[in-house]
Amino acid sequence: MESDGNFHTLEYRDGALHLIDQRRLPGEESYIECRTEAEVADAIRTMVIRGAPAIGVAASYGMAIAAARSAEMSPSDQAAALDAAAEQLAATRPTAVNLFWAIKRFRAAARESGSTGKALAEELLELAHETHREDIAICRRIGDHGAALLPPGSSILTHCNAGALATAGYGTATGVIRSGFRDGKVSRVFVDETRPFLQGARLTAWELSRDDIPVVLITDNMAAYCMHLGRIGAVVVGADRVAANGDVANKIGTYGVAILAREHKIPFYVAAPLSTIDMDTPSGAGIPIEERSPEEVRRVGGELIAPEEVEVFNPAFDVTPAALVDGLITERGVVRLAEGESLSPLFEGSSAS
Amino acid sequence: MESDGNFHTLEYRDGALHLIDQRRLPGEESYIECRTEAEVADAIRTMVIRGAPAIGVAASYGMAIAAARSAEMSPSDQAAALDAAAEQLAATRPTAVNLFWAIKRFRAAARESGSTGKALAEELLELAHETHREDIAICRRIGDHGAALLPPGSSILTHCNAGALATAGYGTATGVIRSGFRDGKVSRVFVDETRPFLQGARLTAWELSRDDIPVVLITDNMAAYCMHLGRIGAVVVGADRVAANGDVANKIGTYGVAILAREHKIPFYVAAPLSTIDMDTPSGAGIPIEERSPEEVRRVGGELIAPEEVEVFNPAFDVTPAALVDGLITERGVVRLAEGESLSPLFEGSSAS
Repeated sequence: MESDGNFHTLEYRDGALHLIDQRRLPGEESYIECRTEAEVADAIRTMVIRGAPAIGVAASYGMAIAAARSAEMSPSDQAAALDAAAEQLAATRPTAVNLFWAIKRFRAAARESGSTGKALAEELLELAHETHREDIAICRRIGDHGAALLPPGSSILTHCNAGALATAGYGTATGVIRSGFRDGKVSRVFVDETRPFLQGARLTAWELSRDDIPVVLITDNMAAYCMHLGRIGAVVVGADRVAANGDVANKIGTYGVAILAREHKIPFYVAAPLSTIDMDTPSGAGIPIEERSPEEVRRVGGELIAPEEVEVFNPAFDVTPAALVDGLITERGVVRLAEGESLSPLFEGSSAS
Repeated sequence: MESDGNFHTLEYRDGALHLIDQRRLPGEESYIECRTEAEVADAIRTMVIRGAPAIGVAASYGMAIAAARSAEMSPSDQAAALDAAAEQLAATRPTAVNLFWAIKRFRAAARESGSTGKALAEELLELAHETHREDIAICRRIGDHGAALLPPGSSILTHCNAGALATAGYGTATGVIRSGFRDGKVSRVFVDETRPFLQGARLTAWELSRDDIPVVLITDNMAAYCMHLGRIGAVVVGADRVAANGDVANKIGTYGVAILAREHKIPFYVAAPLSTIDMDTPSGAGIPIEERSPEEVRRVGGELIAPEEVEVFNPAFDVTPAALVDGLITERGVVRLAEGESLSPLFEGSSAS
């Protein structure tokens, strides 16, 4: 499949899902092999792979693997195995909705298929490949729609990693950056390091550098000063879940960046596929926010950077209200919602796939 | 002298200035001994000691040490030695104005003293001790003035370390927290970890925990979400330099926190002694902002957290405009400036010491 800068975020071959281990980047480029749905679930939970669209594609392969592993069972046992796989995958991370979107898609496909056994397994593997290819094509469309918004030579700020590593390839926010750089719209990218997991420093800086896109790394708390200095022309981030009213859950810190951008009159854009929009959640208040281990804050790598017993609050996401979003960039174009409006028109005339 | 939680930020004994090595906290509590003004300058530059008031007191002892080391010289050679020490100390860090305040004070004292040689050295050492004692007394007054602003049981957010470790003891922002906790005004303190140097995680969380004040450590990018959740009642920070119009230079990230506080209608207070106010700088635009090594951002401890060659922007401070400051808490009380007003009335009827 697609590679950006000569790596694969995920690749299915020889009956296994191969994932680049994002916890070890940029120091080490190693791959993890998942041969069971439990291994896929584990890779999602421990953040070997992260990023809403990439999690969706990984879960798709997880469902296909479960179907293959149960191919010799009776149809009802295979159905039960798929139910169990769905449950296992769904229990990994609560916020990114692409996970649930993918699981739902695969359960529906299994239910609606006339096949069972090996034939069903083959159908679901083909659907996983299709989801994979689709994701890359969607990212390219998002990238082109987003690039069209930017004036030439823009300096972009991004937060976390909504890149090739967060998707099947190309990226959402990073897709906008890639298309923009290709078209002369983007000259330079300021990357928030994005504590505690450092996706910006470790992943975004790494993947953009490999594509020779000029990067300036900053700590999260430098964004406001960079805006004050006039160094940021636009902010582009990804999303983990977008509610029906346009509220956006994304990596912790996004909400603060959106407020700072508004204060400095800098446009704030969110790039996300339709699969990240959750029409069943009316507003951001209904999006579950994952809290992760205190150790992620107390330590960097192995190193303790705070008193060992200190209390920590470690929410992994926050919610940016739709009113702070100057444009939601999807594969179907750019939407800006006024108060009380809904994203539902985006899904008209489609099966919301 | 004063200890908080059983440590000394700085202590002069046996002809040497002993400094707790703040780069090694909280993992290791070790002390560095400075016997020459060059060693004091080095300790300031490498951030063995940091925090505007503490830097001022350390520089005071540096000048006293230079006088002692030149006590056997001719009066003109001793004066030249003091000039050289002043120059060396002044070249360490550009933003914190207490450094220049202390150097100016000691040069004036040396010039105005009738003494030379050993007698002058003794006078300057006494002045350094006085500066040290004064700083602690000032912090206590700041603490009491600040605590009076807070409603009972307040939850405070602080950024960086304006604590006992940033002063001769007790702290400025942390002084407000200590007095507030004693008086039932403060129930809990959210501490921004404060990348890249992690003064919040390493120093503030450590010193408050040692005083049994409840601490919750967060990464810098979580502050906005904590405010949104209603968990922050007030923000209290220190300052490295306050301009005549009330603009505040403080640790990078402070400006962003001030914008976020205003957005959430949370009062934002700055705690600083008069020695941090620079009446010679009309506004924040005139405050020099130190840029530090990219390695501070690329690495945490020894560990590389970003591509080795990635470009980094590492400003150590930013400027918060006076309009975002709901109160400047000094040893003479709390001031809130309207646009176009100056801090000069604070210095009336004093020698601005």
